[in-house]
Amino acid sequence: MLHFDCDYMRGCHPEIMERLVRTNMEQTPGYGYDKYTERAKEAILHACGLANGEGDVVLLSGGTQTNATVIDLVAGRYEGVISVETGHINVHEAGAVEASGHKVITLPEHDGKMLAEDLDRYMTSFFADDTWRHIARPGMVYITFPTEVGTIYSLAELEALAGICRKWELPLYIDGARLAYGLAASPDVTLRDIARIADIFYIGGTKCGTLFGEAVVTRHPEWFSNILTHIKAHGALLAKGRLLGIQFSALFENSLYERIGQTGVDTALALKNGMTQMGVRLFMDSPTNQQFFILPNETIDSLRREASFELWGPRGERETPVRFVTDWGTRMEDVERLLALVSTF
Amino acid sequence: MLHFDCDYMRGCHPEIMERLVRTNMEQTPGYGYDKYTERAKEAILHACGLANGEGDVVLLSGGTQTNATVIDLVAGRYEGVISVETGHINVHEAGAVEASGHKVITLPEHDGKMLAEDLDRYMTSFFADDTWRHIARPGMVYITFPTEVGTIYSLAELEALAGICRKWELPLYIDGARLAYGLAASPDVTLRDIARIADIFYIGGTKCGTLFGEAVVTRHPEWFSNILTHIKAHGALLAKGRLLGIQFSALFENSLYERIGQTGVDTALALKNGMTQMGVRLFMDSPTNQQFFILPNETIDSLRREASFELWGPRGERETPVRFVTDWGTRMEDVERLLALVSTF
Amino acid sequence: MLHFDCDYMRGCHPEIMERLVRTNMEQTPGYGYDKYTERAKEAILHACGLANGEGDVVLLSGGTQTNATVIDLVAGRYEGVISVETGHINVHEAGAVEASGHKVITLPEHDGKMLAEDLDRYMTSFFADDTWRHIARPGMVYITFPTEVGTIYSLAELEALAGICRKWELPLYIDGARLAYGLAASPDVTLRDIARIADIFYIGGTKCGTLFGEAVVTRHPEWFSNILTHIKAHGALLAKGRLLGIQFSALFENSLYERIGQTGVDTALALKNGMTQMGVRLFMDSPTNQQFFILPNETIDSLRREASFELWGPRGERETPVRFVTDWGTRMEDVERLLALVSTF
Amino acid sequence: MLHFDCDYMRGCHPEIMERLVRTNMEQTPGYGYDKYTERAKEAILHACGLANGEGDVVLLSGGTQTNATVIDLVAGRYEGVISVETGHINVHEAGAVEASGHKVITLPEHDGKMLAEDLDRYMTSFFADDTWRHIARPGMVYITFPTEVGTIYSLAELEALAGICRKWELPLYIDGARLAYGLAASPDVTLRDIARIADIFYIGGTKCGTLFGEAVVTRHPEWFSNILTHIKAHGALLAKGRLLGIQFSALFENSLYERIGQTGVDTALALKNGMTQMGVRLFMDSPTNQQFFILPNETIDSLRREASFELWGPRGERETPVRFVTDWGTRMEDVERLLALVSTF
Repeated sequence: MLHFDCDYMRGCHPEIMERLVRTNMEQTPGYGYDKYTERAKEAILHACGLANGEGDVVLLSGGTQTNATVIDLVAGRYEGVISVETGHINVHEAGAVEASGHKVITLPEHDGKMLAEDLDRYMTSFFADDTWRHIARPGMVYITFPTEVGTIYSLAELEALAGICRKWELPLYIDGARLAYGLAASPDVTLRDIARIADIFYIGGTKCGTLFGEAVVTRHPEWFSNILTHIKAHGALLAKGRLLGIQFSALFENSLYERIGQTGVDTALALKNGMTQMGVRLFMDSPTNQQFFILPNETIDSLRREASFELWGPRGERETPVRFVTDWGTRMEDVERLLALVSTF
Repeated sequence: MLHFDCDYMRGCHPEIMERLVRTNMEQTPGYGYDKYTERAKEAILHACGLANGEGDVVLLSGGTQTNATVIDLVAGRYEGVISVETGHINVHEAGAVEASGHKVITLPEHDGKMLAEDLDRYMTSFFADDTWRHIARPGMVYITFPTEVGTIYSLAELEALAGICRKWELPLYIDGARLAYGLAASPDVTLRDIARIADIFYIGGTKCGTLFGEAVVTRHPEWFSNILTHIKAHGALLAKGRLLGIQFSALFENSLYERIGQTGVDTALALKNGMTQMGVRLFMDSPTNQQFFILPNETIDSLRREASFELWGPRGERETPVRFVTDWGTRMEDVERLLALVSTF
Repeated sequence: MLHFDCDYMRGCHPEIMERLVRTNMEQTPGYGYDKYTERAKEAILHACGLANGEGDVVLLSGGTQTNATVIDLVAGRYEGVISVETGHINVHEAGAVEASGHKVITLPEHDGKMLAEDLDRYMTSFFADDTWRHIARPGMVYITFPTEVGTIYSLAELEALAGICRKWELPLYIDGARLAYGLAASPDVTLRDIARIADIFYIGGTKCGTLFGEAVVTRHPEWFSNILTHIKAHGALLAKGRLLGIQFSALFENSLYERIGQTGVDTALALKNGMTQMGVRLFMDSPTNQQFFILPNETIDSLRREASFELWGPRGERETPVRFVTDWGTRMEDVERLLALVSTF
Repeated sequence: MLHFDCDYMRGCHPEIMERLVRTNMEQTPGYGYDKYTERAKEAILHACGLANGEGDVVLLSGGTQTNATVIDLVAGRYEGVISVETGHINVHEAGAVEASGHKVITLPEHDGKMLAEDLDRYMTSFFADDTWRHIARPGMVYITFPTEVGTIYSLAELEALAGICRKWELPLYIDGARLAYGLAASPDVTLRDIARIADIFYIGGTKCGTLFGEAVVTRHPEWFSNILTHIKAHGALLAKGRLLGIQFSALFENSLYERIGQTGVDTALALKNGMTQMGVRLFMDSPTNQQFFILPNETIDSLRREASFELWGPRGERETPVRFVTDWGTRMEDVERLLALVSTF
């Protein structure tokens, strides 16, 4: 069976597991006060081009947890967070953002992305109508890089969006659950750009090589002055915080994060090329590790006996969109076997 | 100056004020344990056609407060509430529903209303997709009668919607902020129908004759077993609860609630007729106390010197939708003066 | 029947009711954008000795609502509020403060009051223990004036407490539900002192003459920059905000607030003197409108046939503490009738 | 350096790490839908003496997260949780329980434990006072086994407490963060007793051998009908849920959980015996893996150069209470080295 369901089906990258095993019997302080966490933070700040004091990093365990915790940190008590309709926080987080009191305010999506002009128009009309005091106040902007449908913002799009955010004094938060794949696919956006453009963002580990873990980076270190208490109040403080430190210090040494991103993207593009060469239509033109095709229902039924993947929406009458996801552990031979299977139907 | 901005610009109906004055120096227990509250509850249950034990009533002060408190009572901790996009809880309540932890899940609106088939389709596709456990679970349905744009559901529409709610085990909650006007305008829906069809609903006082106050009615009295504690935890328990009891007992005696609704609707329809006879176009065809027209911008500018009303959306290039609201205190002569003004432009 | 149960058993002071009646049919904008609210704010700032721009005022409806809304405004997301164990927010508010996410951190009480040294000791030991990041962070201090047992802080005690608050950068919030009676009873504390010493406080209306209403005053006007949205998100924004404005402008004209306080205190002290002269023991020596005595159970049983009042704690074997409350509407003859009754048992 | 600071300073038990390594490159579904989680649940139910359908299990990552999630599941929206003052949720969880809206209601502690009669007295007086509707309603009872100070309830004490819980219809929740050590130390309480007596409880992994993870067990499986959505709304759903399944299935095979508990307790008792034989006084007589002594300040200062441990409270003038914690990885030779060090001062 070939698995292309999602990018969190395996454990962690072997180079990370090796470190977890090597350090397993050491005794260190809890809650992130260990040397590995310290080392991970330094490596991340360095990779982000942030000098000491220019930024800060904190490590959490999972994506929904990170989104809820960060949004509740940045948005004021009566403030909502602006997202496109298809944003992860609006769709697949079980109301976790609302559970800590913040409305998700939605804008239309364009290939999964938020347009700077849509944001500007929303804010202009928000304050134009004098009933704004009765409406959940927009307190920050949330985007994902890459988006839910695998697309990525160009550097110009990011800069434009950040400009509108500054205009309206809205902190920009970038959810980087699949950041490694987005950076590997981008012709112009680097990690340093993300760190410069976002007020706060996270570098996803769970989908990019670790067992679990997301590194939240901000260039407003004052926001983190009581961050451990805030994290703990969200039930998000890991007792053995070093597990996050060990994993992220491995990710940010020896270019592991870049290699992981590259592997995911290379295998995804091989899949995309192979499929389009066979005449399969794209449902969405994604440059990252999620690939979306439209397949005849019979092909889907046959293929599912030997490969697992997700339907992307309800089954159509004759054909249905599907999603295939690669990751750091996908091998070219897996892609070739998948393509060979498709070609037989 | 003529005021048609909204239906909460005056104090209360004189018959209510008279009772508040008459009882002012009496001493009664607080928090709704007084005889007036008891009398109001009985009158309301009677008007709703609910025998003792078949239903229960509790009195709160304001609409947003009532919505947040009821939704937090009925929806489970991880459940959201389904509303049309233009629903009051989604637009004009400053995120109060989310502030107590519940996502507002939106469906498209049709003249302000929710269609039974839209609800059914949403629920079907919700459970069809096996990622539903990751999505805020729909825990109840919220509609308003009349809607934000003054329209009303027919009895058949309400029954159809309630049928789908039962199918999916979703309690139906009806926000009756302007219920008096809705019932007065409806050819077939009565208060008893509302009480029979809704699992829980409220009879609005603030916009229908009282200084403040909304009466929440349910045919699931077990839901109210600890209702005072729940209300107090929401900061919504009025110390001098009798103020609500006195006002609502006045509303439900001598057909005051019906008379209030009738006055609002009669004056609104007189306005609508007069306007359309002058060739003014309707923006929305409303049978209740909110009337929506499209006026040329010059007419608006001139009219605003002598009458106040709301623009309904951003100012257009040449013309703009506007809203005029009548209430229990609007006199036919006010409408005539307004029509006369419009006719001069 | 004589009622001494509490100070919210009547409607409002006749001078206030007169204004509500007089303005009843006027039409004004909602939500506090009316001239009466403006006038009330100005009168309150003036009475507090705060020039325009030095402070701000907002009007809410009830005490629990006000406490939850203010605490959620001032305390950060992960911060708690320090109160004595017997503080109203810790005991009689149904968990409303916790319902918006804030822990109530308790200190011991001394005749209902918080000692400056207790607060200093708590904060010192809080930060001395390096586990403080794992503990709800103290974000503000809450006291009541007068306390739950009718006692009042001296000016020196208030200054000392405020000094410790400044030392630890904890905003001081004073709950003035019964402030009128506290000020009337105090030999040295004035409203201006309260406004100077507290970072934020409220002037209680519900127990001091109005139908409902509490005026929140702060000398940090920047805290109120989006206060209406915050209030609405708490379900605490009154549609007909002018009702609060009318009542508070009446309270702060013609010395009504002072007169109300004086009446409550004068009748309470007459009761206290009469009782002690008959040899009744005090349970608590209160100078304000709540009086606490220890009565034999037989006296209680007999008296209850003609007067209502509260037991203060569980019934003892032979005698039980009781509370009698006066207010702006209590007459000296009521006190005399009560004393006459007691003297017969 | 010898470390006795706490029981979460190492990674995981080697038998668990071995399984994580072995399964690392397998691909399984996320969120707990994998075979390892299934196996772990079955093993746990079996160990608890619960047949299929009689109970249910769900796996979370950390203790504070588990407490907040379980309490928010079991307690109603306006209900608080009863705990002793020194309970972990009241002291060391940064207000996480209050952050999801529930007041922690405190009772006095007796060697860290809650007495059945204290609970009964509290509930009796709660309902005796007719102001109870204004007070946060007790919705469940929280205890820890072992307690914060290492003590354990006898079977009779647990049964008595559970009886009072049933009398007042309060679900009993047992926090078993250190359950392995508590069971190993108990002369009469077994895991089956815990599962029979508690309505819901958790089997701690983080402090008892795993990298992270707590298994929540209930004998009310209907409470878990939508548990994944609830967990996700709390940000507590692990993407690679199998990590929990793998660890807990290892813990509950080959008596690993028992062996871990035994090692912790054996080394702790060796330490206690050694210390008391040297004349060191106990601060608390604990039978589990936390040991509390009173040491002269000079001894503490000297010892700290070669061993780490916690002061238990503020430093005294001449002597100070200290805590030493053992765990599954503590060796007898570590204890002997520590005792040798102490003997030299």
